[in-house]
Amino acid sequence: MSKTFTAKNPATGQSVGAEILEWDQKQTIAAIKAAANAKQKLSATTPTQRAAVLNAIADAIEAEKDNLAQTANLETALPLPRLSGEVMRTVIQIRSFANLVKDGGHLLPIIDLADPNFLPVARPDLRKSQQSLGVVAVFAASNFPLAFSVAGGDSASALAAGCPVIVKAHPSHPNTSQIVYEAVIKGLTSQGLPKELFAIIQGENPEITHWLAKAPEVNAIGFTGSAMVGKLLISLSQERSVPIPVYAEMGSLNPVFFTPTALSEKADELAKAAIDSALLGSGQFCTKPGIIIVPNDDNGDKFISQVKEYVAQQKVAPLLNKGIATRFKDAISKLSKSKGLEIISSIGNSDGYGVTANIFVTDWSDVKNHEDLLEEHFGPTSVIIRTPFDEYLKVAKSMQGQLTAAIHAGADENVKDLVDQLSQIAGRVIWNGFPTAVSVTAAQNHGGQWPASSTHTTSVGLDALYRFVRPVVYQNFPDNKLPKELQNANPYGIERVINSERSKKAIN
Amino acid sequence: MSKTFTAKNPATGQSVGAEILEWDQKQTIAAIKAAANAKQKLSATTPTQRAAVLNAIADAIEAEKDNLAQTANLETALPLPRLSGEVMRTVIQIRSFANLVKDGGHLLPIIDLADPNFLPVARPDLRKSQQSLGVVAVFAASNFPLAFSVAGGDSASALAAGCPVIVKAHPSHPNTSQIVYEAVIKGLTSQGLPKELFAIIQGENPEITHWLAKAPEVNAIGFTGSAMVGKLLISLSQERSVPIPVYAEMGSLNPVFFTPTALSEKADELAKAAIDSALLGSGQFCTKPGIIIVPNDDNGDKFISQVKEYVAQQKVAPLLNKGIATRFKDAISKLSKSKGLEIISSIGNSDGYGVTANIFVTDWSDVKNHEDLLEEHFGPTSVIIRTPFDEYLKVAKSMQGQLTAAIHAGADENVKDLVDQLSQIAGRVIWNGFPTAVSVTAAQNHGGQWPASSTHTTSVGLDALYRFVRPVVYQNFPDNKLPKELQNANPYGIERVINSERSKKAIN
Repeated sequence: MSKTFTAKNPATGQSVGAEILEWDQKQTIAAIKAAANAKQKLSATTPTQRAAVLNAIADAIEAEKDNLAQTANLETALPLPRLSGEVMRTVIQIRSFANLVKDGGHLLPIIDLADPNFLPVARPDLRKSQQSLGVVAVFAASNFPLAFSVAGGDSASALAAGCPVIVKAHPSHPNTSQIVYEAVIKGLTSQGLPKELFAIIQGENPEITHWLAKAPEVNAIGFTGSAMVGKLLISLSQERSVPIPVYAEMGSLNPVFFTPTALSEKADELAKAAIDSALLGSGQFCTKPGIIIVPNDDNGDKFISQVKEYVAQQKVAPLLNKGIATRFKDAISKLSKSKGLEIISSIGNSDGYGVTANIFVTDWSDVKNHEDLLEEHFGPTSVIIRTPFDEYLKVAKSMQGQLTAAIHAGADENVKDLVDQLSQIAGRVIWNGFPTAVSVTAAQNHGGQWPASSTHTTSVGLDALYRFVRPVVYQNFPDNKLPKELQNANPYGIERVINSERSKKAIN
Repeated sequence: MSKTFTAKNPATGQSVGAEILEWDQKQTIAAIKAAANAKQKLSATTPTQRAAVLNAIADAIEAEKDNLAQTANLETALPLPRLSGEVMRTVIQIRSFANLVKDGGHLLPIIDLADPNFLPVARPDLRKSQQSLGVVAVFAASNFPLAFSVAGGDSASALAAGCPVIVKAHPSHPNTSQIVYEAVIKGLTSQGLPKELFAIIQGENPEITHWLAKAPEVNAIGFTGSAMVGKLLISLSQERSVPIPVYAEMGSLNPVFFTPTALSEKADELAKAAIDSALLGSGQFCTKPGIIIVPNDDNGDKFISQVKEYVAQQKVAPLLNKGIATRFKDAISKLSKSKGLEIISSIGNSDGYGVTANIFVTDWSDVKNHEDLLEEHFGPTSVIIRTPFDEYLKVAKSMQGQLTAAIHAGADENVKDLVDQLSQIAGRVIWNGFPTAVSVTAAQNHGGQWPASSTHTTSVGLDALYRFVRPVVYQNFPDNKLPKELQNANPYGIERVINSERSKKAIN
């Protein structure tokens, strides 16, 4: 463990925080094996105990709120209020999983009692519930140093499901990661659980990804990041002797459609709101509106002229790390040379990993002439596409899978076909709003058709838990040999489906 | 469409039934495109309409019950009573899906109303339900010419989910397939739906598999069959520009463990029951007990000697087709030459695709010396493994994923560790019973860890439907632009989760 690295402050490009020891393969494998050996300690907890563990972790993270926000601010250059809010989002989403599991609802017990008259043949006693998958490898994202990082949505949902977690910490914020790691361990051990149930792998070595994805003891992967790494993980999983599910959220263009009617009343206001959404967090959200569709009429002209005025006033913060800044600058520089593409730029910002905002404007018929224009570019940019309103459906039909799609229209406008098409490609469809800001709640869905996501599951909200469980049914088992949630007495007092009826009662 | 083929009667090896036209690529692609174009006709049906369609299909199949059983008997050599029962299983499972969808329960509506006080930030109105995936390609199995074939569990669950279905009919029973196809079309069209929503592709050409798996309009695959074809489908899916879920059920060894205590009272009875299960349907079930573990003590001796006596009396029916018969004979012949492997055989049967039953007996320590012994061999064979009881856990830990695992033990015996281990590898764990016979019910789970299944889902029972839907959430939508199941008035009158509470009420 001789190699080390340091975080860089994006505002200055200078090293910040402690020297971080780089994990080697042997240590990584040992951490995975230790987690696998300890897994029953977590999976065997009762709903009440599981909830207590999650709440203890949430409390321990909340106790570090200021320390975390300050450390993350130095490592990411994201503003302090945003980071304080993100600590609380992280804490609250862990608590919401605690709330879900404390009633055992996540076990989804379904009991069909033996029935000699069942057709076409007699039915045995069948009792099914959801069991923990095993060790989950989580790949932390750079753009949410808390909510999608060490103890973010993937880790929280996996722990809630009863799975040990090994996180590949993001090398852009290793000090933040270490603080969160220590808080998680404090929470786990305060409830009598072994610290081996949770680990972070620190390092810049790209091989870490391979070690985790190939380890036989890893049973599932949760990933938020680029399409390139997401596809690598899927491919590594398929090469294993036992393939595992890869829940990869790989980003999105999040189209926002404005009808002429929507713009006719408040083109100015909507233009500002669209740019605010596109430049929020320096455009480093997977829900950033990367395509904005406006009509090529007077309303559209008004929208564009307001965009010009507003973008000119914007100062954006530095990007998260050197890699993102370099890729962004390269992409913008390449597109800037693309003939006939209009560019709206903000005032310069070149401190550390600073960049300017660049909004491109083009006609739908001209998109094909600009290579890479409709690729996801992480950073303060978006593409405004102009086309007649009656072409919107065609534009929507040409699109790949998206995390979100938004439409701004009049209340009485008939946009059914467009909404239907958007619901075919996106996991979340938004009316008269913008895709940034993702509520962590039961109804949420953060996932879309390929290539936005690798599966039809959500990585945000309570349903994220179900990625990390699998059904097991017990046939004709003696009561005392069944998992507790399936026993006659219903010792957990949870809601179960018994012969197709919901009930919290015991079986007599 | 000049090429044709015919079914073969396994009892004689002779052609039976009509000349079947072999589909070519152009016809196949046209059928897929037609299904994709018609998909909204099915996905837009109300719960009541969807249920009526399924019931009409079930009725139309039931009306052909005798015709189907007789035709399938000629094409498969499976006994008539089994086939009549299988028609009814097919019919009843379609009706059970009708029953599920008629209440809209499968839409799983979750509504979180806007909440300005939600933490950490105000929550918009979010309403999520499950939407149809699109066209599903189903690969029919040879061993269930009805229940896992043209209108079997995969097709029924996909149609119930609102997905058009294209079935690769199994060339072993094309006439049976055609009758079922016509019944499905009768059911669909009787409810005013276009026949393009359902098609069967007939043929022996292995390219059909590739055409289906590669078609851009196909959104998911349901498969029951060999590991070889299952793995091919997964690999073809990953090569697509848009990968799709492949729900492959690829078979299993279904270990059955007998403790000394279980055998001490009734070794004879259990030996007969185990052999009955292994030879049922000539051993052509994916739930056939392919490994039987007995102790190497007096009880085990008693079990084996009863097996010898009982197997000698067995006559098994011919296998389903020439390919299965040939592969079975080759495997048995190869194993028969393996030194020191005890073989218990039945009386000869060589009509048509007839084979003898062959049960192998070996010691656990000797298994490694017999290549392919622990592969799944479709046909009347099983492997009895003898080892001390205190080695059972070790044996279980060495096993791959299984559809089922069974344990016969005394009521007061402590076999917790063994049960826990079996629940780690199998989707269904059976107490003092045998794996053959799979109830079609809500609590059922027919799927296990890799390589038994490609995903953690079930292909039997009501939950099979959820393989063919995906969540979509609507944010801040005007009520009249929401899917009906999410509208305030709850026009379908279905149960919904509103702000975490179950309710059938409207929202005021």
